[in-house]
Amino acid sequence: MELLKKRITKDGKALSENILKVDSFLNHQIDPSLMDKIADEFCGKFSGTAFNKILTVESSGIAPAVMTGLKMGIPVVFAKKAKPSTMNEEYYSATVHSFTKQKNYEISVLSKFIKKGDRILIIDDFLANGSASRALIAIAEQGGAKIDGIGIVIEKGFQNGGKLLRELGYRIESLAIIDEMSLNSIRFRD
Amino acid sequence: MELLKKRITKDGKALSENILKVDSFLNHQIDPSLMDKIADEFCGKFSGTAFNKILTVESSGIAPAVMTGLKMGIPVVFAKKAKPSTMNEEYYSATVHSFTKQKNYEISVLSKFIKKGDRILIIDDFLANGSASRALIAIAEQGGAKIDGIGIVIEKGFQNGGKLLRELGYRIESLAIIDEMSLNSIRFRD
Repeated sequence: MELLKKRITKDGKALSENILKVDSFLNHQIDPSLMDKIADEFCGKFSGTAFNKILTVESSGIAPAVMTGLKMGIPVVFAKKAKPSTMNEEYYSATVHSFTKQKNYEISVLSKFIKKGDRILIIDDFLANGSASRALIAIAEQGGAKIDGIGIVIEKGFQNGGKLLRELGYRIESLAIIDEMSLNSIRFRD
Repeated sequence: MELLKKRITKDGKALSENILKVDSFLNHQIDPSLMDKIADEFCGKFSGTAFNKILTVESSGIAPAVMTGLKMGIPVVFAKKAKPSTMNEEYYSATVHSFTKQKNYEISVLSKFIKKGDRILIIDDFLANGSASRALIAIAEQGGAKIDGIGIVIEKGFQNGGKLLRELGYRIESLAIIDEMSLNSIRFRD
């Protein structure tokens, strides 16, 4: 997605060879118009697939997910980072190892929001080691749902999450794939 | 907003006289189409005011905020619940006392996202004791911005947040105001 790559180049900041900061339009301040165009792209890439639900994780997945859900006419469920012990209804949960924060945390979804047979599109802001996507997949599968696609805004192609998930047979559409970064320099995959 | 009141009546659950659960369309599962219509309502109510930024707080404020930001053509900043010590840039922060969770927590915004003279619309999912709104106001004012309006999806009119903020001179537009609740019963203000 050329507009997205241009925006990452202009407003993103490579803090190191591994960490990209895009807090001015995606992760802290959000550009709603860009989110809307991102949603158009996801709709285009997944136009042949009929999902009935989008699954994402709070907080940065929510904006691209709801814009896409609006265009597809389907609900959006966001996994919560609350400790499962605070949820007093039945829930599904899984562990995420955050690459950026270098720590583990649980994400959870109340079981009533994942139904057997749901045809789910996962949407998230980043794909790095794939841990968040794998946790969302685990949650969906606990509920008997199918992951029919994974939509990623920015994939860090030099980390193994994308490769791992594609080898497992998941369909991933990433709107920008970064193959290399160094301080203040970003190289996209063609 | 009649559509919202009907949805609260149909899908909301009053757990007690103080706690309303709307997790099937706002707080865990999100109905994007409803968020879009909520954004239309906010645009209508605030049509005479020219904001340049929306300020909300993660996570449930994000969906109505980005839909509204898209229609108004302005960016959305969401305050984070991360401990300020994990933010390694200058930030503004304030304390929220969560009525629902009965605990205090800090919310923070990097100072680069609040500029002196910004004309801010605060948007949030609930208004109860007003603590979250007051924390967002405090953050905006630390940055020299003006709060020109507060848009609330659901106001619990029997708690004092709305009264307190209106007496302080803030303009609040709430799309549904609940005057009384008891187990499984919700009464809206006309």
